[in-house]
Amino acid sequence: MTDLLPAAVATALARVTPWDDAHFLTGLEPGLEGHNALLELAVAIRSEQQALARSRPLAGRVFAGMFFDPSLRTRASMAVACAKLGAHFLDLQPGTAMWTMEFNDEVVMDGTAAEHVREAAAVLGRYADAVGLRAFPTRGQWERERSQPVHKAFAAHAGVPLVNLEGPFAHPCQGLADALTLRDLFAEPAGKRFVLSWAPHPKQLPVAVPHSALWAAASQGMEVVLTHPEDFDLDREALALADGLARQSGGSLRITHDRDAALDGAHVVYAKSWGALSGPASTLGGHADVIASHSDWRVTEADLRRGAPARFMHCLPVRRGVVVDDAVLDGELSSVLDQADNRVWAQAALLLALLRR
Amino acid sequence: MTDLLPAAVATALARVTPWDDAHFLTGLEPGLEGHNALLELAVAIRSEQQALARSRPLAGRVFAGMFFDPSLRTRASMAVACAKLGAHFLDLQPGTAMWTMEFNDEVVMDGTAAEHVREAAAVLGRYADAVGLRAFPTRGQWERERSQPVHKAFAAHAGVPLVNLEGPFAHPCQGLADALTLRDLFAEPAGKRFVLSWAPHPKQLPVAVPHSALWAAASQGMEVVLTHPEDFDLDREALALADGLARQSGGSLRITHDRDAALDGAHVVYAKSWGALSGPASTLGGHADVIASHSDWRVTEADLRRGAPARFMHCLPVRRGVVVDDAVLDGELSSVLDQADNRVWAQAALLLALLRR
Amino acid sequence: MTDLLPAAVATALARVTPWDDAHFLTGLEPGLEGHNALLELAVAIRSEQQALARSRPLAGRVFAGMFFDPSLRTRASMAVACAKLGAHFLDLQPGTAMWTMEFNDEVVMDGTAAEHVREAAAVLGRYADAVGLRAFPTRGQWERERSQPVHKAFAAHAGVPLVNLEGPFAHPCQGLADALTLRDLFAEPAGKRFVLSWAPHPKQLPVAVPHSALWAAASQGMEVVLTHPEDFDLDREALALADGLARQSGGSLRITHDRDAALDGAHVVYAKSWGALSGPASTLGGHADVIASHSDWRVTEADLRRGAPARFMHCLPVRRGVVVDDAVLDGELSSVLDQADNRVWAQAALLLALLRR
Repeated sequence: MTDLLPAAVATALARVTPWDDAHFLTGLEPGLEGHNALLELAVAIRSEQQALARSRPLAGRVFAGMFFDPSLRTRASMAVACAKLGAHFLDLQPGTAMWTMEFNDEVVMDGTAAEHVREAAAVLGRYADAVGLRAFPTRGQWERERSQPVHKAFAAHAGVPLVNLEGPFAHPCQGLADALTLRDLFAEPAGKRFVLSWAPHPKQLPVAVPHSALWAAASQGMEVVLTHPEDFDLDREALALADGLARQSGGSLRITHDRDAALDGAHVVYAKSWGALSGPASTLGGHADVIASHSDWRVTEADLRRGAPARFMHCLPVRRGVVVDDAVLDGELSSVLDQADNRVWAQAALLLALLRR
Repeated sequence: MTDLLPAAVATALARVTPWDDAHFLTGLEPGLEGHNALLELAVAIRSEQQALARSRPLAGRVFAGMFFDPSLRTRASMAVACAKLGAHFLDLQPGTAMWTMEFNDEVVMDGTAAEHVREAAAVLGRYADAVGLRAFPTRGQWERERSQPVHKAFAAHAGVPLVNLEGPFAHPCQGLADALTLRDLFAEPAGKRFVLSWAPHPKQLPVAVPHSALWAAASQGMEVVLTHPEDFDLDREALALADGLARQSGGSLRITHDRDAALDGAHVVYAKSWGALSGPASTLGGHADVIASHSDWRVTEADLRRGAPARFMHCLPVRRGVVVDDAVLDGELSSVLDQADNRVWAQAALLLALLRR
Repeated sequence: MTDLLPAAVATALARVTPWDDAHFLTGLEPGLEGHNALLELAVAIRSEQQALARSRPLAGRVFAGMFFDPSLRTRASMAVACAKLGAHFLDLQPGTAMWTMEFNDEVVMDGTAAEHVREAAAVLGRYADAVGLRAFPTRGQWERERSQPVHKAFAAHAGVPLVNLEGPFAHPCQGLADALTLRDLFAEPAGKRFVLSWAPHPKQLPVAVPHSALWAAASQGMEVVLTHPEDFDLDREALALADGLARQSGGSLRITHDRDAALDGAHVVYAKSWGALSGPASTLGGHADVIASHSDWRVTEADLRRGAPARFMHCLPVRRGVVVDDAVLDGELSSVLDQADNRVWAQAALLLALLRR
């Protein structure tokens, strides 16, 4: 395959050391060095995209995407990443056109589930060279969900690398793209202040993106500030991981409920809503009061222009007028489209690293 | 890319002058000359399809199709057109596997819509080199729908060419294929009589296809006759556009409620049903009486054999025994399969024109 | 195209004699010799998969898969088979994103069906070089369903080869893969004992797979033993076909209700559940008692280890603890993943044979 790669891509690929078991469940598996090597590979692929479209280095390779939950950007960007490298994207949406699935072991399957993950994952692993999986958590069961049990079951039985396309604990493809965007924004991200700011939202959203965003910024040696109202703590282990990455890369992590203090001196404001981890099972409703009582957490243009203008980041989709003002999204400080665009190149780098032989 | 094209295709492509903003919302954007250059390009691609399948001139390019409403022919023919040229077809069906979408500006998005068209369209425009969109009109709101607001919103924010895969006012891909079919049928379509004849149907169907069919025939200099019962007028502006095209190409447009007179001397009978533009909001039901009272508008073989046999055209899908007799569809005068087939080549021409660099 | 094939593949392909009308509805159309030539082609393709992925012998060709019923393995394996040969897989799921369809002739289509199979099939045949179709039977109408009327209607009107992706009477792609698996398991399958053993299941499943499994084993000259409880007879014609194949290939077919006697000396135990052909229309429920009263038909490890260990086969998806014990599926005697894997190569052979020009 290497002879099909432009020299810059081949060189960058060679610097990505394969990691144990080759899964990508939190995105931290490659280690800090491996993670940053993937980012350099993404830059090389982006530069050489026309040559790659013709040489098709992954021709005949298959990436299967299993979506238990809805997706626009992730499906589309994975399909495009595959297309750019000549791989085939196998788009699977269980629950619509497919069988329901059993995840527990030693169960007598006389109910509605027609297939066990042991067979489903293993068969996909025969058809595909890597398997992607999206499955959101069931609310109200955080202690169980935080270990990403559905993803782990697929990883255990697929026999090929498992890529998390958003799980309960992490959204590592988003994180990789966000780290790439931070590198694009700043010649030297290290030392710049990155503020992850909680935002109001009508739904109690998962914490996968804020976790991955923290790790992305921490991996670049940034001064990471996390700010949210009381009762919206992120997962303790996710915070410990962010702290460890920050120490390793020369950055720092600070957590505060004082939004004003957090925004001072920010180079980046990354807005994201999430529900309390200990909250009730309902994912919709009951949160209207949160919007009303926390409307001052909505990002405004003034928030970005306290000092040197800060860049605005968000993973999308975003609720205008709730999470952030229209003026911010439509203004020159928004990086949200670059974040979405970088999904393609970050994931293409991951695919190339996982599917090389 | 040009070095990947057979000479006949390269020559035909060079004759398609790029048009302002590169959108294809009514299909009239390229102008009469550009429209006919696209048809010649379609013929060249059809002839050289085997060479193109191997050279893959659009390798690495992506066409995204966004289907808010159901589709068989359009999805399939766009997928095939992409495959024939080596492009990737990104098939997106919002409402099924994706987020619902907000189209109004300056709205506080605290309801069910999770994403605004401004972000959705802009992100698709980052992932795809052109975006296709299907969205049918809401009945009973013609004055609003006739401007194709959803398509315009996507076109405004996508940042890449927007191709209408059927909207309220036009179905330009069908129109382009129909014009190609007319050229295939007649060495010289100019002066031949093209009759667009309203037909009964249990649903109040949109007017996009009859509009585009009128423009297709008018663009070929045909003697266009539109016939329908009272109360089924097409849109005033659509008729004006047809009249303008007819004048420009040496043809004519005539409208009559006298179906018998219209069919006399017809070379083509294009059947199509549509609901009254001023009709009630219901799209199904209440139309059974229309079938009963207008059953003489169903196309029979006798209709086609009054003089020299006329060809039968319809965009499909078609209700047998309601719109047209089985004998017509199964007989030698039917061109409906050629129309469907030409969707591939007409759209391939459009893709090549839009995605060349 | 032949110049794009590795020599071993070209040689094997040349040995597959085209058969009348080129459909693949029961899988028996190529005849015994043709069937076995397809298996040798599958082996050649599997060996040369890397070269084929680069040369893409079916570039520009389209295979359309029409799924009226859910599918994981068949959709995925067909998509992968296409990708391995460079063909485009057009994945169509009517009833979700498409129009409902009329199958009866001379009907006035004033109901819900918007399109007749005559047009739908013919249009697909214009877009695709071969069409695949999955449609399960309606229970309680076996005398009508056994002739696979929906498949026959598509085959009659498509104008291109029609591949059965599971119908009421046969699942020939599964059968081809199973025959390939039997050849992989045994240097010489002829004379080995193949036991098709009915199994309990909460649903009254179709008989397509057991029919095709019988034919697969019979075509390899095996000693085929079919065992099931009373009232679960397979179709009379399907049994006659199996008997004919067995005679032609030097094998045999025996049917018994005595499961113990059947399992003695088995080299392969192929488990599969099916409902009684004369049973009521309900496909779910009422079968719980069948599980309870026939739990001794569940395959255990002891069943496989009566003498020389027998291999376990099943088409998947499989109900653990109902059809078969976990220990069997997770043990070294299971061939279920190889069966699933061989779907790709069996179907790739079929595609290459059907789509060569």
